[in-house]
Amino acid sequence: MNILVTGGAGFLGARLIEALLSPDAHDLLPPGGRIVSADLAACPIIDPRVESRTGDIADPAFLASLIDADTHLIYHLAAIVSGQAEADFDLGLRINFDATRALLEHCRQAGRAPRFIFASSLAVFGGPLPEQVPESLSPLPQSSYGAQKAMAELLINDYSRKGFVDARVCRLPTISVRPGKPNAAASSFASGILREPLAGQASNCPVPLDTRLWLSSPGTVIANLIHAARLEAEALGQRRTLNLPGISVRVSEMLDSLARVGGEAARQRVSHEPDERIQRIVCSWPGDFDITRSRELGFTADQDFDAVIRAHQRDMSR
Amino acid sequence: MNILVTGGAGFLGARLIEALLSPDAHDLLPPGGRIVSADLAACPIIDPRVESRTGDIADPAFLASLIDADTHLIYHLAAIVSGQAEADFDLGLRINFDATRALLEHCRQAGRAPRFIFASSLAVFGGPLPEQVPESLSPLPQSSYGAQKAMAELLINDYSRKGFVDARVCRLPTISVRPGKPNAAASSFASGILREPLAGQASNCPVPLDTRLWLSSPGTVIANLIHAARLEAEALGQRRTLNLPGISVRVSEMLDSLARVGGEAARQRVSHEPDERIQRIVCSWPGDFDITRSRELGFTADQDFDAVIRAHQRDMSR
Repeated sequence: MNILVTGGAGFLGARLIEALLSPDAHDLLPPGGRIVSADLAACPIIDPRVESRTGDIADPAFLASLIDADTHLIYHLAAIVSGQAEADFDLGLRINFDATRALLEHCRQAGRAPRFIFASSLAVFGGPLPEQVPESLSPLPQSSYGAQKAMAELLINDYSRKGFVDARVCRLPTISVRPGKPNAAASSFASGILREPLAGQASNCPVPLDTRLWLSSPGTVIANLIHAARLEAEALGQRRTLNLPGISVRVSEMLDSLARVGGEAARQRVSHEPDERIQRIVCSWPGDFDITRSRELGFTADQDFDAVIRAHQRDMSR
Repeated sequence: MNILVTGGAGFLGARLIEALLSPDAHDLLPPGGRIVSADLAACPIIDPRVESRTGDIADPAFLASLIDADTHLIYHLAAIVSGQAEADFDLGLRINFDATRALLEHCRQAGRAPRFIFASSLAVFGGPLPEQVPESLSPLPQSSYGAQKAMAELLINDYSRKGFVDARVCRLPTISVRPGKPNAAASSFASGILREPLAGQASNCPVPLDTRLWLSSPGTVIANLIHAARLEAEALGQRRTLNLPGISVRVSEMLDSLARVGGEAARQRVSHEPDERIQRIVCSWPGDFDITRSRELGFTADQDFDAVIRAHQRDMSR
């Protein structure tokens, strides 16, 4: 009974592995079970049940070594983020689509139809958008990242329909507050404008203050990814792609929360220099979703953005 | 000024080439221009302006030989049909997706951003469907053919957004009445139950008589494919995928038309033996669409199904 986590050295992957190792998750990782982390870097979680494998998931030999007949659950988180995939079209396609396809094909060959949980993104949406995105809205990506994720979603759904895997595709909200350093994601600022000021550093907001974002804290995203693995296939039926719950918050409201929870001095550390490249991607994304279905299926959202900042502060003081 | 037609030996491709050769299409094929037909078989249209190339579009060397800096318009019609793609998953993926991707990549390398017209299909839709499919409905394919077409649509849209091609993705209705023999498409019966009885032969209807189909005659589809090449990019904006007009007709109404136009004896040649494999695919498809946008863009539909049958009779007597 093994679990594979691609992107296991990343912030989200490592935190997911921690959660899978906790006693609460013994149904997913029973005694004797093992977690394989696959990433370019070593998994930071040191535990006898975690096997850290370093390599490029676009490398067929590396990928082939990750899955065997004991792999019953796969979290596929590894990806080229939005800003980088826009700048390097070929790299994005190779990792975000081709590697996903190769992983699915190995699952098919292993013949065990593992649960296959894919981290997709609200970036599949774009173009003219309704106020609130319904369950049935067609993806219309305005970035190569979004297009590659949407293509992977379709392929995963078809592999699932054919019985090669048992899929749950989770379209994640923008995650805030991510710890660590800024990254090449176009949404990097959605963490930076909180994280840096709270740590006494300056940060810039590159989008208009009335931009509405669809957000989730890291803890809520992890809880939802764990929940996805526990859902029975019958509850999902043909529709294996889910818009995960989030909260709809304007950037100005995020900064108000920062002042309330982190103090006015922290708020003053945020500058506001527009960046057209980032705006073009981020402002094409929806800021609100109808989440009736994912709520009914038991997925959760944060209470409000003040709670999100407090959760970050708790994480930092651990 | 060259035009490439993949699938140029097929029924639709050959008829499209005929239309492109006519004086009405001199704006698309100016004097000195040439049409390259690429298919497994030779193009049946004999004309000094048509160069018939036979080969497998999944073969990189063959594909590379089809496009050059003079190629300003591409019709990509070659595909593995629905029934065959469902039976042979790998072949469907290789032709319907991988070959499309390779073709796009050659366009990118040639650097001319040709108009790229892709024959997609209503088979991208499935699952729970509204009475009438709106422009914004998400694909939810219930066949590998539909999934592969939907993936190709996304990739084409992204290549177009990046400026590598200038795309128009046409989701074709089910075509009726196709001439010739039954094929491996799940929708083959939608022509067979007219064509065979009108030629004095028996035919079987494998789906319930109240099944609603979204139909277009071959002549109307060809006119719409030609129109797609003439549309200016500005008229399409970000949304390069179009649900082409059709008429919404129940199978029972098709058979009533057959009796009216072809006579009661023709109607009596149609038997009704259900086929679960065909039903599973065909009955997952929508039978009606909101076509406000494609109508506004100048695409057309047949008047009614009696007119569709009469058009077939005219074609047969040419």
